Amino acid sequence: MDALTAKTALEKGKASRHEFEGLHYIRLHDSVARLPKGSVRLDDGTVVPGYPSIGRIQALGPGLAKQYGDELFWAEEKIDGFNIRILAHQGRLLAFSRGGYLCPFSTDRVPELLDPTLFDDHPGLILCAELAGPENPYMEGSPPHVTEDVALFVFDIRRAGANGFLPQEEKLALAERYRLPLARVFGRYRADDQQALHALILELDEAGCEGLVFKGETRGARSKYVTARSNITDIALVSDALLDLPPEYFTHRLMRLALFESEHRGDDTALEQELGRALLRGLGRAVERSRSVGRVGHRYRCRFREKRNLEHFVAHLEATGGPQHVKILYQPTHQEDGYWVLEFERVLPRMTGTLAHSLSGGAQFD
Amino acid sequence: MDALTAKTALEKGKASRHEFEGLHYIRLHDSVARLPKGSVRLDDGTVVPGYPSIGRIQALGPGLAKQYGDELFWAEEKIDGFNIRILAHQGRLLAFSRGGYLCPFSTDRVPELLDPTLFDDHPGLILCAELAGPENPYMEGSPPHVTEDVALFVFDIRRAGANGFLPQEEKLALAERYRLPLARVFGRYRADDQQALHALILELDEAGCEGLVFKGETRGARSKYVTARSNITDIALVSDALLDLPPEYFTHRLMRLALFESEHRGDDTALEQELGRALLRGLGRAVERSRSVGRVGHRYRCRFREKRNLEHFVAHLEATGGPQHVKILYQPTHQEDGYWVLEFERVLPRMTGTLAHSLSGGAQFD
Repeated sequence: MDALTAKTALEKGKASRHEFEGLHYIRLHDSVARLPKGSVRLDDGTVVPGYPSIGRIQALGPGLAKQYGDELFWAEEKIDGFNIRILAHQGRLLAFSRGGYLCPFSTDRVPELLDPTLFDDHPGLILCAELAGPENPYMEGSPPHVTEDVALFVFDIRRAGANGFLPQEEKLALAERYRLPLARVFGRYRADDQQALHALILELDEAGCEGLVFKGETRGARSKYVTARSNITDIALVSDALLDLPPEYFTHRLMRLALFESEHRGDDTALEQELGRALLRGLGRAVERSRSVGRVGHRYRCRFREKRNLEHFVAHLEATGGPQHVKILYQPTHQEDGYWVLEFERVLPRMTGTLAHSLSGGAQFD
Repeated sequence: MDALTAKTALEKGKASRHEFEGLHYIRLHDSVARLPKGSVRLDDGTVVPGYPSIGRIQALGPGLAKQYGDELFWAEEKIDGFNIRILAHQGRLLAFSRGGYLCPFSTDRVPELLDPTLFDDHPGLILCAELAGPENPYMEGSPPHVTEDVALFVFDIRRAGANGFLPQEEKLALAERYRLPLARVFGRYRADDQQALHALILELDEAGCEGLVFKGETRGARSKYVTARSNITDIALVSDALLDLPPEYFTHRLMRLALFESEHRGDDTALEQELGRALLRGLGRAVERSRSVGRVGHRYRCRFREKRNLEHFVAHLEATGGPQHVKILYQPTHQEDGYWVLEFERVLPRMTGTLAHSLSGGAQFD
């Protein structure tokens, strides 16, 4: 994205200008000239390409056969977190969200989650990673192996200005040398390694992991596939937001679940109960909250190293959510164990309104 | 609806003309001059008002208190069928659907389901009824007490040209005199008869019945309330159509289920399993059908007394569904036990397409 392309994108309403502590950047909210949305151009002309979206296969065997044929592919763990891109810029580490915003939370925490000498030795690198864990400000889920705070999982590395990602071997070598926290790499397979892949996905399902990302050895084509239980976990975490999320959130996960069961397991009464519970407990929680506090919402807690990053984050929350949709529950006046801890709630307006109407005896015409 | 009102509605695109065996009628597909949509004007000027929609309460106790205050109300069984209006016209019985179409199936079967001398003695009456049972051409559900074919359940009677419905006593007297099949009337209650109503709805839930309709004794205001299990049954019957139905079909039922449980029962692990099974078995059925026949659909079977009514019905099906969405599975060449039996399938295009894509290994970008 040269200066002219950026200017044209701004004029066409496909990009917008942002600023963070004196750093000016342009963010694409639409794809432009082969750059996916979420791409960023910094004030010195550095371009951070958006992370490309990865096709999801719904049937493991046929999906791998169709996507890879005879080609070897790597299988890596898919981590249930949020996607960031990390780079060093003018002496500091920056982390951009999938959408191309400079993320004050990730930017605050990343320096303690990896060894920054990587960037001293290789200044043009961009790390693509998932930030995941129970104490994050964006999402409800968390990998089973991250039980507190957040952890970083690097899964791709690229060079600013170059197309594509580094080959797997190069990524692994850098990771080893700089002790980068990597998403687990399970090895190389072919589509006809059915039994091994079937066993691997059932093991991940049992462990509560999200699933797999596949990366073709030669063409590099990516695809992803999730476990049955990751769908149930996703539903359990947000069924109290049933009316506030796009319905596809639920219908897509139910389809994936049924396809997984049909391919790998068949009738499983334990899973039936888990699914019913995932829906009913969340909805029951919402009814209970509506009765007790008149409001349904999701609570978040996260830690910052620097108070000013917390303040940037709160300003961003309030600018995007508005006071009626975000309640700051706890804003710290002092550090605890070296961190500034923030607690807030995102209010779910449709669940709040619908349940208030229903519980007060209102009728619905449907 | 006088002739001028009908003409204006036609001009405004709020009504359309139809014909059935020489009977010409105008059907409102929008409300016009206080007549709800589904109202019909016959060629001799007779008006059959559309059946008004009934507000649904989601919390029984608060709902009854808000809708009825101290007023007495009747509680009747809500039947899981489809709504028709029956009248005698020029020597024959006609049945109109909720939407105001002359229904060839209902018109065919109604004469054997009630005593037509009612209309000889009271020529201007309109019966409002539910036609319900496993062998109907419109819907998957059926009341537990109708185990074969279809049965008729009258729940309201009105006079052509008059506003409102006959009072309950008058309806009951006519029903007794002409042995009309009635939806069960459980009696009169007040909103503070909490315990009796709680017991009644749990009994209906246990029996697999759909729920209750309430009718105010003085103002006549109606409302309805359904059992927990009717929601699960509805979901179980059509979860194989997950992507073809409006998502609200599922989300509304999940909300009702959670509100019912919260009010009447609390955590119920059996119900959790029933709900999970309702979703997973239906979806599993869809995957299985996609694998075995490459198509997902719902099958229907129904019986006609007169062959020409079956032919009218098939013509209507083909006109509205189109050959790609309706498959006639069995069209009879002779009567069986006095009936002409039709079997057909409504194809579910989104489930069919999505599963074919998924099972062939296609990727989805979501």
